[in-house]
Amino acid sequence: MGRVRTSSKPPAAETIAVGSELLLGGRTDSNSLHITDELATLGIEVRFKSVVGDDRADIVQALNTAVRRARVIVMTGGLGPTVDDCTREAVAQAAGRRLARRKEAFEGMQARLAQWGRVPNKGQLRQALIPSGASVVPNPVGSAPGFWLSWRGALLIALPGVPGEMAAMMRETVVPLLASRLPQAPGRSIRRLIFHTWGIPEADVDAKLLGLIPHAIPVDLGLLASPMGVLVSLTMKPRAAAGDDALVSVSDEVRARLQDWIFAEGQESMEEVVGRLLAKQHRTVALAESCTGGLIGHRLTQVPGSSSYMDRGVICYSNRAKVELLGVRPELIEQQGAVSAEVAAAMAKGVRERSGVSVGLSVTGIAGPGGGTTAKPVGLVYIGLNADDGTSLVKEHRFHGDRTVIKQRSSQAALDLLRRWLLAGHP
Amino acid sequence: MGRVRTSSKPPAAETIAVGSELLLGGRTDSNSLHITDELATLGIEVRFKSVVGDDRADIVQALNTAVRRARVIVMTGGLGPTVDDCTREAVAQAAGRRLARRKEAFEGMQARLAQWGRVPNKGQLRQALIPSGASVVPNPVGSAPGFWLSWRGALLIALPGVPGEMAAMMRETVVPLLASRLPQAPGRSIRRLIFHTWGIPEADVDAKLLGLIPHAIPVDLGLLASPMGVLVSLTMKPRAAAGDDALVSVSDEVRARLQDWIFAEGQESMEEVVGRLLAKQHRTVALAESCTGGLIGHRLTQVPGSSSYMDRGVICYSNRAKVELLGVRPELIEQQGAVSAEVAAAMAKGVRERSGVSVGLSVTGIAGPGGGTTAKPVGLVYIGLNADDGTSLVKEHRFHGDRTVIKQRSSQAALDLLRRWLLAGHP
Repeated sequence: MGRVRTSSKPPAAETIAVGSELLLGGRTDSNSLHITDELATLGIEVRFKSVVGDDRADIVQALNTAVRRARVIVMTGGLGPTVDDCTREAVAQAAGRRLARRKEAFEGMQARLAQWGRVPNKGQLRQALIPSGASVVPNPVGSAPGFWLSWRGALLIALPGVPGEMAAMMRETVVPLLASRLPQAPGRSIRRLIFHTWGIPEADVDAKLLGLIPHAIPVDLGLLASPMGVLVSLTMKPRAAAGDDALVSVSDEVRARLQDWIFAEGQESMEEVVGRLLAKQHRTVALAESCTGGLIGHRLTQVPGSSSYMDRGVICYSNRAKVELLGVRPELIEQQGAVSAEVAAAMAKGVRERSGVSVGLSVTGIAGPGGGTTAKPVGLVYIGLNADDGTSLVKEHRFHGDRTVIKQRSSQAALDLLRRWLLAGHP
Repeated sequence: MGRVRTSSKPPAAETIAVGSELLLGGRTDSNSLHITDELATLGIEVRFKSVVGDDRADIVQALNTAVRRARVIVMTGGLGPTVDDCTREAVAQAAGRRLARRKEAFEGMQARLAQWGRVPNKGQLRQALIPSGASVVPNPVGSAPGFWLSWRGALLIALPGVPGEMAAMMRETVVPLLASRLPQAPGRSIRRLIFHTWGIPEADVDAKLLGLIPHAIPVDLGLLASPMGVLVSLTMKPRAAAGDDALVSVSDEVRARLQDWIFAEGQESMEEVVGRLLAKQHRTVALAESCTGGLIGHRLTQVPGSSSYMDRGVICYSNRAKVELLGVRPELIEQQGAVSAEVAAAMAKGVRERSGVSVGLSVTGIAGPGGGTTAKPVGLVYIGLNADDGTSLVKEHRFHGDRTVIKQRSSQAALDLLRRWLLAGHP
């Protein structure tokens, strides 16, 4: 295929994540997402991502592929102290360089280890090996240095795979390096807007957005469905010369068509939106979780500062806990079942009254795989909301998916009910 | 299979995940992990993973790269009904095929949509377009069919990106197809063992495993550190002819050297191990979570059947909740601070006594980024355990990392304390 690199195009980038663990399951390459975001701010588009094991020949293969199609190559991983870390050797082989111990790499590592009261061991000494002609990328967090070099018209950057180290090195060295090496025309950065929706199926989002983008407008529309909702993205085509106006007018149209199904834009999460509204309205919340098992509490408390509005949560997995901690009447559970609109309402009321917060939020449902019946199948979930202005709401959902998905959807539905109530404005 | 390229090597595979969303952040390609696991059972090693956007030229580029280095190529994504889904077109272009509507693809889709009371719309009709010479891979879950074809000595398989659909199609069609097309010698499947450790730094694991694998043994050792601990993997080199004995003897040595730092093997998670021990010992647990905010409850209740041992949890984010729900004395919080060994002990005792379970587990700490002091910095966490045999334990931890990492490490430390207590054997 051989794409011609011309100066009129923004530089394409490729990430290469090295590590057999990334191939063999249990771990995914999340570093590349961070790198993509950082490069996008420079107008550099990551067009390819590769993952390859700790195998020198395979890394060389990946490098040779990348250098044909990318002007910026960011590698992560394989720079550790153990013998299976062979990124250094692979880069040296692919680019025809020699490896030698570099003074500044060694000294940086030594200084770092000294802070921890340690001296470099034999494996760590290998980490000071840098290909000839490459520059050291200092590691302000950990012991493994990175490096960068120019190779066949591309900038090749090798960073450790530890996310915190990679991120610090991107911020402190790589982004400034790229900014100076690949100056972009002003306004040529990739412009992208993201809308997060909940409560509307992907097919309906698709139908509502039909004909959204006039033919002449260089914006791409993307949809992605997940258990947490449907994500809508608008991306200004990177090779487009158009200004921001096009994207602004299309995004206004997206908001008009999808209305309050959109719960967040950009990088904001549902829990951040809910937290922001609670904080702004000086309201506090308490949770009564059955089938979600603590997931809603976990999500709300992921937000720094959440202690100002999150008072408490009760994970009432057993019926006895619902009675003892929330004051749900045993007869109600017996008559209606623990998974019922009545019990959801009583849970929300109980947790609000007992904790003295502004609003109580409850979930009771059947996450499966066991426990379902014909009348109450796996996926049946009730969400309750009880507020100090007299509001009492219950919503019934019938979710599909496995246990994890049903828990995720339930937590999202509960937080969305709270979001909508907060948005509606109350005295 | 047309021509055999390297009869002495097991077939190498490559996954190609298609979707601009996977490049642009917020989502990672988790499908490839599932595919890797499925192929490993057939002795097929995924050596490369690629991610590429919804750009036909880039997908063609990725396909041309893959066909040079892999005998099995599994693509996911880009088969949806929207115009940005162009996997079909890219495969047709790369492999020099024509696209035409295929009867069985159309009928399968029509039947599926009919179940949902819908008829195919224009976009969905595109999903019945299949490259000439390709076979349809039926989709037993969703509407988008997949397909497979032979191309330049490789088997190319295209599946939808929706995880549930991809997994069902792998199981029902792709795995049987590959098993019949690429018969492996018995015992040639990839053999891999994984050990999950907690509480020991990566450098110490590395030191303890020094000289583990004799030179002649064709086993690779891998280490991977994460907030949840250090993962140790032993992988029989795929091209090795050695039997299982080598792996067995090395794995015995790993267990001997790492002892009870190993909390799980294989795919088992910490919460599954703890759940298994609780169920086996007919013990019940209640949680008192402060800084983890519900994460421990969420993790324990991810395990199907956890309602038999998980009674309840209390997320006591406010001090008032610690007093009201757990009976922690206000003076204790005032004198020692909410983050203290004394309060952790009182929380564990309170939640156990009030719920009447066998064992209470508590966490109190400073997850950050705010709230730290010199005496009590961000990352200071106390874990308490109180059991009905009189046990009362408190462990102090000083974790590094951001809020998410500190919550993760705290939950892991708490579950590990419970695991160790359960393993120690009690009347």
